Amino acid sequence: MLGIGVIGCGYWGPNVIRNFASIEECELRAVCDLDPERLGGIHRRYPAARATADALALIADPAVDAVAICTPIHTHFPLAHAALEAGKHVLVEKPLTDSVETAEALVEMAEDRGLTLQVDHTFVYGGAVRKIREIIDEGQLGDLLYFDSVRVNLGLFQSNVNVLWDLAPHDLSIMTHLIDRQPRWVSAIGSTHYGKHENLAYLTMKFDDMLIAHLHVNWLAPVKLRSTLIGGSQRMIVYDDLAPSEKVLVYDKGITHNADVSSRNRALVDYRVGDMYAPHLDNTEPLNRVCRVFIDAVERGIRPPTDGLAGLRVVRLLEAGQQSLRKNGEQIAL
Amino acid sequence: MLGIGVIGCGYWGPNVIRNFASIEECELRAVCDLDPERLGGIHRRYPAARATADALALIADPAVDAVAICTPIHTHFPLAHAALEAGKHVLVEKPLTDSVETAEALVEMAEDRGLTLQVDHTFVYGGAVRKIREIIDEGQLGDLLYFDSVRVNLGLFQSNVNVLWDLAPHDLSIMTHLIDRQPRWVSAIGSTHYGKHENLAYLTMKFDDMLIAHLHVNWLAPVKLRSTLIGGSQRMIVYDDLAPSEKVLVYDKGITHNADVSSRNRALVDYRVGDMYAPHLDNTEPLNRVCRVFIDAVERGIRPPTDGLAGLRVVRLLEAGQQSLRKNGEQIAL
Amino acid sequence: MLGIGVIGCGYWGPNVIRNFASIEECELRAVCDLDPERLGGIHRRYPAARATADALALIADPAVDAVAICTPIHTHFPLAHAALEAGKHVLVEKPLTDSVETAEALVEMAEDRGLTLQVDHTFVYGGAVRKIREIIDEGQLGDLLYFDSVRVNLGLFQSNVNVLWDLAPHDLSIMTHLIDRQPRWVSAIGSTHYGKHENLAYLTMKFDDMLIAHLHVNWLAPVKLRSTLIGGSQRMIVYDDLAPSEKVLVYDKGITHNADVSSRNRALVDYRVGDMYAPHLDNTEPLNRVCRVFIDAVERGIRPPTDGLAGLRVVRLLEAGQQSLRKNGEQIAL
Amino acid sequence: MLGIGVIGCGYWGPNVIRNFASIEECELRAVCDLDPERLGGIHRRYPAARATADALALIADPAVDAVAICTPIHTHFPLAHAALEAGKHVLVEKPLTDSVETAEALVEMAEDRGLTLQVDHTFVYGGAVRKIREIIDEGQLGDLLYFDSVRVNLGLFQSNVNVLWDLAPHDLSIMTHLIDRQPRWVSAIGSTHYGKHENLAYLTMKFDDMLIAHLHVNWLAPVKLRSTLIGGSQRMIVYDDLAPSEKVLVYDKGITHNADVSSRNRALVDYRVGDMYAPHLDNTEPLNRVCRVFIDAVERGIRPPTDGLAGLRVVRLLEAGQQSLRKNGEQIAL
Repeated sequence: MLGIGVIGCGYWGPNVIRNFASIEECELRAVCDLDPERLGGIHRRYPAARATADALALIADPAVDAVAICTPIHTHFPLAHAALEAGKHVLVEKPLTDSVETAEALVEMAEDRGLTLQVDHTFVYGGAVRKIREIIDEGQLGDLLYFDSVRVNLGLFQSNVNVLWDLAPHDLSIMTHLIDRQPRWVSAIGSTHYGKHENLAYLTMKFDDMLIAHLHVNWLAPVKLRSTLIGGSQRMIVYDDLAPSEKVLVYDKGITHNADVSSRNRALVDYRVGDMYAPHLDNTEPLNRVCRVFIDAVERGIRPPTDGLAGLRVVRLLEAGQQSLRKNGEQIAL
Repeated sequence: MLGIGVIGCGYWGPNVIRNFASIEECELRAVCDLDPERLGGIHRRYPAARATADALALIADPAVDAVAICTPIHTHFPLAHAALEAGKHVLVEKPLTDSVETAEALVEMAEDRGLTLQVDHTFVYGGAVRKIREIIDEGQLGDLLYFDSVRVNLGLFQSNVNVLWDLAPHDLSIMTHLIDRQPRWVSAIGSTHYGKHENLAYLTMKFDDMLIAHLHVNWLAPVKLRSTLIGGSQRMIVYDDLAPSEKVLVYDKGITHNADVSSRNRALVDYRVGDMYAPHLDNTEPLNRVCRVFIDAVERGIRPPTDGLAGLRVVRLLEAGQQSLRKNGEQIAL
Repeated sequence: MLGIGVIGCGYWGPNVIRNFASIEECELRAVCDLDPERLGGIHRRYPAARATADALALIADPAVDAVAICTPIHTHFPLAHAALEAGKHVLVEKPLTDSVETAEALVEMAEDRGLTLQVDHTFVYGGAVRKIREIIDEGQLGDLLYFDSVRVNLGLFQSNVNVLWDLAPHDLSIMTHLIDRQPRWVSAIGSTHYGKHENLAYLTMKFDDMLIAHLHVNWLAPVKLRSTLIGGSQRMIVYDDLAPSEKVLVYDKGITHNADVSSRNRALVDYRVGDMYAPHLDNTEPLNRVCRVFIDAVERGIRPPTDGLAGLRVVRLLEAGQQSLRKNGEQIAL
Repeated sequence: MLGIGVIGCGYWGPNVIRNFASIEECELRAVCDLDPERLGGIHRRYPAARATADALALIADPAVDAVAICTPIHTHFPLAHAALEAGKHVLVEKPLTDSVETAEALVEMAEDRGLTLQVDHTFVYGGAVRKIREIIDEGQLGDLLYFDSVRVNLGLFQSNVNVLWDLAPHDLSIMTHLIDRQPRWVSAIGSTHYGKHENLAYLTMKFDDMLIAHLHVNWLAPVKLRSTLIGGSQRMIVYDDLAPSEKVLVYDKGITHNADVSSRNRALVDYRVGDMYAPHLDNTEPLNRVCRVFIDAVERGIRPPTDGLAGLRVVRLLEAGQQSLRKNGEQIAL
C-alpha cells in the first residue's frame, strides 16, 4: 500500500493529513513540522504515523513512497527537489514554487525519473470548476471573451509573500484549467498599505485573440467576495464560490453583431436574453479528490489535471505579474 | 422667472425636461430635437414650451435664459460654446466634453462671462454619494487607501463612444467628488469584442500617497452590478447602488500594523472588527436636485458641486484613460 | 373607438389613466376625482379628457363606453353597479368589492347584460405569474403540495381596511389564478398593534387534497419582502417579486417516498436534487396588459382571465378570512 | 475533575463529545451507542473514554459525574430519569422530553436532588441570540409586537417525529429565551405530504398583550431559510442565521400613531426611518458555550439560562401545538 508522508502541519497540512488518513488505498505513515506543539497535536490524533521535526528524515523514510508538502512557498522547491531526488512522488501545495526556474527544474526532474508531481490547485477539483470546464468543453459559451475574478476579504496578511502570490494562485489555477491558451502578456498594479508586501493587486492578461482576463485580489476588504464572471459569445457564467447553493449560474445572454449598421444610429448590436440555469454540482470535498487523484497518478500512471506543467503555468503568470507589479503595470510578455 | 431650454429629447432629455417642468422657480420655455417624432411627443406633453429642431434658434431665443444640453457627447462642446457665447447659463449632460482642450475652453468662457456652467454628474446629487462624502468629511474612514468600482451590465452598446466614455464618467464623477486630490497617473486596458469601440475596460489610477483607484466598466456582463468598495484606515464602505435599501454600508473594520514583528511569524497586523451600520439616505430624485442646484447657481451665484472644473477633472481622467487604452495600459501622467 | 372613463385619480388611477392614454385602440374621454387638486393635475396632463368631480356624470356620459374604477374599496360596488346599470363595461381595482353578496350581484348583472366585468388583479398579468401558470399547466411541478406567500413591508397603514383586505388580494389573486380548486376552509389570525384594523395577519387555507396555502401579510415589517414558495411533488418554485431579474426560480428538487422502510431507521424518503433554472420573463408592464385585455374583452368578447368570477373567488376568501380573524382563527368553511 | 459520559453518537453526539473532550475543566470518561460501528469510530478517536453499548452501565459508572444525552427524543425521559436517580447531573439534547408530564417530572427530580438539569438549546448560546437578548434587555426595541420565524429546507424527514418536534424547538427556545411571558394560547396547522408525520407546520401564539408569535417549519422547501423578524414599537430586528456575516440587523424604524386623525384621511400613522446597524457578534461555537455553562452549573451552582424549566416551557408549547395540529388549528390554552 502507498505510504504517505506529510510535511507541514500548519493551516492546510492538517486537512491534507485528515484526507489521506481517511482514504483506504493509502496509509499515512509520517508527519513533520518544526513546531513541537503542532506536531504533538497531530501525533495524538494519528498515533500510527511517525512524527518528526526533520523533513529530510521523513523524505528518506523507506516507508514513505509519496510526500505531500504543505509548507511556506519558499520551501516548496528545496523540499520537493529532495523528495524527487529520493525517488518519492510529490504533491505540493499551491503555488508549485516561487519562480519559473525552480518550477521548471521540478517538472523536468519528475519527468526524467517517471515520478508523479502534482500541485494542489484545490479549486480545480471542486464541483463548480469541474462543471464550468464541462460547460466550456461542450461549447456552450461559444468563444471566450473575458474572465474576470474578484477574491477579496479582510486578512490574512502574510509576512513573506504579497497578496498576488497568496490569493491569485487560486484564480490563475482556475483560469489556466479552463483556458488552454497562454496569455500574450501580463500587467499588474498593486498597493502596499501596510508592511513590505502588496496587500491589493490588479492583474490583467491579454491573449492572442479577443480574450482578456483580470484579477482583483485584496487582503483589506470589508466583505468577503469570491466571484468570477466568464463572458462567452453564446453564454456567460457567474460563479460565486460563497453562494450557499447554486454557485454556478449560466446565462443564455449575449449580443448579435449587426454588420450593416449604415441606416441605424445605435442599433450596433441586438441583445439576446434567454433562461438562466444553475447546474447541480458535485459536493465532494475538493481536497479529497486531490488526494485520490494523486494516488491514482502514482499507482496507475493517470496524469492529474494539475500536474507539474499546470503548476508551472501558474508560476509563470505569477512571476510575470510580480515583475509587472515592480514596474507599476508595465507589460511583461510571456 | 428663469426660462429654461432643453436640447436633446433622447434618453436623458425627457427626464431633465420633466424635472425642470415640475420646479416652480423656473419655466420650461423651449425644447429641441432633430427627430420630429421625439420632439412631437415632448411637445404634446409640454405644449407651453416652444418646440424646434434648430438648436441655435433655441439658444438665440430671448425667452431662454439657461440651456440644458442632453445630446451625444461630441456635440456638447459646440452647443455649450454657442450657448455661453449667447450669454446663456449652461447645464451639460456628463461628460462635459470629449476632450480636455474643449472642456478647458468652456470653463474659461463661463468664468470670463460670469455664467453658470454645470455638469450633470447625477450621482453626486444622490443620497448615497452625499452621505459618503459626509462620512469622509467627518474623518470616519481615516486615510483613504483604495477606491474600487464595478459598473457592468448587458448593453447598451453605443455607436460613437466606447464603454470608458459611456460608463466611467459616473464612477469618476463620484470619485473626484469624494477625493479632492488628482491621481498622479492613469492606466487603462480594454477589449473590443464587437464593432470598433471597447466594450470592457479596466482603469487604474495611482495617487501621490498610498491611494489607488480602479474601475471595471463592461457592456457585456450577464448581470447588472454597480458596486463600490472604499477602503480607509479606520473604516470601509461598501456602496451598492442597486440595493433596494441600505445602499451604503459602513464597516468598522481595519487592521493595526505591528511595527515590531521580529518575534512573530505571521502576526504582521492585528485585525479589528466592530459593528456595521447603514445610514438612512435621502431619497430625493438626484436629477431634481441637479436642476434645483442649477437654478440656485444661476439665480443666487451659489457654486454647484459639479461646476465646469469638476467636469474638467473627469474629462482629464477620461482623456488620459483613452490614451492609455490605445497604448495597452501605458501609464499616462497627469 | 372605445371611450374610456376613469374614476379615481389617487394612487393607482394615474397609472391606469397613463396606460389607457397610451393605447391606440381606445380613447381616454373622461376622468373623475373628488379632490380638485388631483383632478386638475390629471387634467393638465390629459387636456382632451373631460374632467369632473361627479362620478355619476362620468358614468352617464355617452362618450364613455367603459369605466375603470380606482377608488377606495367600499365604493367599488355602488360605482360598478351604477356603471353596469348604465350599460357600461367595467374594470375595477382589486378587490372586486368588500363582500361576497355585492360581488355576486355584480357578476350576475354583468352576465345578464352581456357586459364585460374585469378585476384589476395586476399580478396575474405580469410575466412572472404568467410563466408560473405555464409551468404548472405543463405539469412540471407534479402535484401541488403547498403555496406559501410573504408580503410584508413598512406601511402604508390604511384607515378604512385592514392589512388582509389591503395586501392579501394580491396573493389570493395569484393563488386562485394558479390553483383552480377552492379551499375547503380558511383560518386567519392577526394583530392590531395600532388603530382599529389588523396590521399583521396570517391566513391559512386547506384544500380537499394535500394542498395547504398560507399567507403572511404585514404593514409593520422593517424590510420589504414579496416572496412565494410553491411546493410540488416534482419541482418547486421560489418566486421573489423584488428580485431585479430572475424573479422565478424553478428547482428540480423533491423527495421519493419509500413505501417499505421496515429495515431502515431514518430513510423514510430519498432526496432528489437536480438543476435549477430561471425562465426568461416577459417584462411588459402588467397594467398595460390589463388594459389591453380589457379592451379585447369589450371589443371582441374574449373572456379576461380575471373576470368577475375570478374577482368573486378572491372576495370569498377575504370575507371568510375576515370572519376567521374576528374569531381568532376559527375555521370558516367555504 | 468532572467526569463526563455521553450517550448517543449519532448526528449531534460527536459534536458534544468533541467539545467536552476539548475542555480542560472536565474529562470525557465514557461514551455509549447501540451501533457498534459508530461506537468504534468514536472510541478510536477518544481511546481514553470507556466505550459501551449499555446506557445504564454508563450511568452507573462511578467515574461518570455528569451525563449528556444525545439520543432520539422518546428516550430522553427514561435516560435522564435514570441518570438523575443515580445522582448524576444531566445535559439533554433539545427538546427536553416528549411530553409536559415527563418534563415536569425531570424538573422536579433535579430540584429535589440538587442536581443540574440543562437542555441543549444551542441557539440560545450563539452570538446572535445573545446579542438580541442584550438589545431587548436594553429596551432598544420598545414594546415587543411580533416574533415571526421561518425555518425551512429540504429534508431530513424523521421517522419518529413530525417537523414541529424536529425544527420548532429551535425557534421556541429562542423565543422563550427572548420573551419572558408565556403565550395565552397556541394554534397550529400542518400538512402531511408523505408518510405519517407532518412535514410542514405553521404555529401561531398569542400573548396577553399585543404580542403575536408565528413559526413556519417545513422539511420540503427548495431553499434553506432561517430567518426571524422581531417587531418592536421602537426598533425591529431581522435575524438571518444563514448570513455569512451580519446575521443580526437592527432597524431604527417604526410608526407613530396619530391619536387625532379626524381631519385627515390616511395619515393614521407617521413613519419613522433611521439608520440600520449590524452589531458585531461573538463567533464562539455555541455548543462549546453550552458545555462550559454546564460545567459551571455543576461545579459552581450557576443556574444555566436553559435549565429544566426553560426546557419545560418549550415542551409545553410543543405539546399544545401538537394538540392543535391534531384538531386542525383549534386554540389550545396554556
